[in-house]
Amino acid sequence: MHKIAIDMMGTDLGIAPIIDALKVFVKKYSDVFFVLVGDKAAIKEGLNNKKIDPSRYEILHTSEVIAMTEGMMEVRRKPDSSMVRSAELLANDKVEAFVSGGSTAAYLSACHFIIGELEGINRPAFMPFIPTIKKGKSVMMLDVGANLENNARDLVNFALMATVYAKVIMNLNNPTVGLLNIGHEESKGKDYHKEAYKMLQGNNNINFYGNIEPRDITSNIVDIIVTDGFTGNVALKTLEGMAKNLMAVLKQELTKNIFRKLKALSLRKAFRGVRETFDYRNNASALMLGLKKVAVKTHGSSDAKSWISTLEMTRKAVINDFVKKIEAEIKKGV
Amino acid sequence: MHKIAIDMMGTDLGIAPIIDALKVFVKKYSDVFFVLVGDKAAIKEGLNNKKIDPSRYEILHTSEVIAMTEGMMEVRRKPDSSMVRSAELLANDKVEAFVSGGSTAAYLSACHFIIGELEGINRPAFMPFIPTIKKGKSVMMLDVGANLENNARDLVNFALMATVYAKVIMNLNNPTVGLLNIGHEESKGKDYHKEAYKMLQGNNNINFYGNIEPRDITSNIVDIIVTDGFTGNVALKTLEGMAKNLMAVLKQELTKNIFRKLKALSLRKAFRGVRETFDYRNNASALMLGLKKVAVKTHGSSDAKSWISTLEMTRKAVINDFVKKIEAEIKKGV
Repeated sequence: MHKIAIDMMGTDLGIAPIIDALKVFVKKYSDVFFVLVGDKAAIKEGLNNKKIDPSRYEILHTSEVIAMTEGMMEVRRKPDSSMVRSAELLANDKVEAFVSGGSTAAYLSACHFIIGELEGINRPAFMPFIPTIKKGKSVMMLDVGANLENNARDLVNFALMATVYAKVIMNLNNPTVGLLNIGHEESKGKDYHKEAYKMLQGNNNINFYGNIEPRDITSNIVDIIVTDGFTGNVALKTLEGMAKNLMAVLKQELTKNIFRKLKALSLRKAFRGVRETFDYRNNASALMLGLKKVAVKTHGSSDAKSWISTLEMTRKAVINDFVKKIEAEIKKGV
Repeated sequence: MHKIAIDMMGTDLGIAPIIDALKVFVKKYSDVFFVLVGDKAAIKEGLNNKKIDPSRYEILHTSEVIAMTEGMMEVRRKPDSSMVRSAELLANDKVEAFVSGGSTAAYLSACHFIIGELEGINRPAFMPFIPTIKKGKSVMMLDVGANLENNARDLVNFALMATVYAKVIMNLNNPTVGLLNIGHEESKGKDYHKEAYKMLQGNNNINFYGNIEPRDITSNIVDIIVTDGFTGNVALKTLEGMAKNLMAVLKQELTKNIFRKLKALSLRKAFRGVRETFDYRNNASALMLGLKKVAVKTHGSSDAKSWISTLEMTRKAVINDFVKKIEAEIKKGV
């Protein structure tokens, strides 16, 4: 039985969607035991009448909560918060993974101070899975916001770690890596881009494609895209916003009058196809790569569907002993 | 009669779309005279049978061309290129504006070395007009690629210049300015973001909205978005790519079988509405703000429709004596 801790507190939508996800998850998979960390009374109330097999979880009561708006200092100020206690369970090997939907700043701080980075990794990275034009095929992009700035060596480490993930967890044979940049040519970008280009090209453990332009993030050209955290965050949020706004304009046009509405209704399967291709709810979570243990972060506004995919991603990372394999690769790659 | 020079060479699609645009433009507006700069024989051939009033243009023959793939050094190496000669016409006040669809690197170099920046402006900026969810309403974002890096002072200058543009050319009363950043809070981003936030907030000539997240670039929240050139370029290209890919997936879904095709055909007006809202061809050009004169850059792959909107934008900047007004504002704002 694999053990996963869930930080139950501090999300936008409360405990309910996590419990709903758990109910589905424990029926589907028999090999995971959960430690639900947070306010015991609230969690018990949430579990009430849900009929989740009690042998599949335990509750660890904590008295403090780090709110969504609170920052990294809260990790020091609130030692009995659900986030800190969850991270400690992981650091002390009481569980094999830790998942949270709470404050990103506090999460980053908990990961750094309580769990710690692998040797050779100065900067861990958030890695989400971004939908592409090819249905069911996503691209891994990292970092998308764990860091504000990264150097060339960080980007190479990101490429190495994601390559291991792609091979071990996604069974991709020889995953390709693109460097997010403002042009195809090797000479494009800032100094660290040019340096990273050379290092990526020269590394035998990385199947380097070259620069990839932002307009091709979702074009299914590479398996992995590496970037500094600030740029990655901007690109990811720009994608999300454009997908949302374009679908909103489409909806507006299709519901302009009753004739359009009726016709559009008869095409609802087609529109569902588009929405599903670019549904960011299926991809709300991000692995934190570069830590000594498996840590996963999901959006604070994740619904049950998002939480299920988050828990599935966490399980995969755990049962494949993913961090050990990354550790070995980093030692080789450096 | 206002005089505008057009660099006729070095674009992806050749002379034809420019001539087609000219034909439409000279019929619509009677107050502009064009100097067509480039290979005389090629331009004459392009003009053949187009019946464009010969009193509305002259041809300035040049013997060299800077190719799309060539860089900034070409501006020194090719003194008789169409781009260099066009820029010189502007620098020497033979024309009031200069438009090019050629190599961006060479264009930036020509603007800097031949035309020069306004006093107080260290970094000029490319400013395109980005479509938003509100039909017909675009947001001005700058810089989107004239610079790799910018400091807080640059961003304030961008805000001042774009504010003048919005007031003078777009007749907006009190245009709002957002700072592109990875979160709403003042504390977000790199040091220069925090510094720019304070400076923008404290400047009486700027109606500062606060930080704007990348997911809201197209949400019609502000009139102007300021950012460093690298980030702006990434955001702009990410938007373009997502719009293109989402429409491609939509098309794929709607043409999956004959039934869907027929239904979709009956909704073509609705889809056209969406495409027109987010049509980047209507917005292929960018003003170069911060120069001593009016310079406009359009995509190398601009079609006639793009060229028309480019020439219209150029005309507006010229007849409103836009650069003088910017100059005055910068003097006040510094």
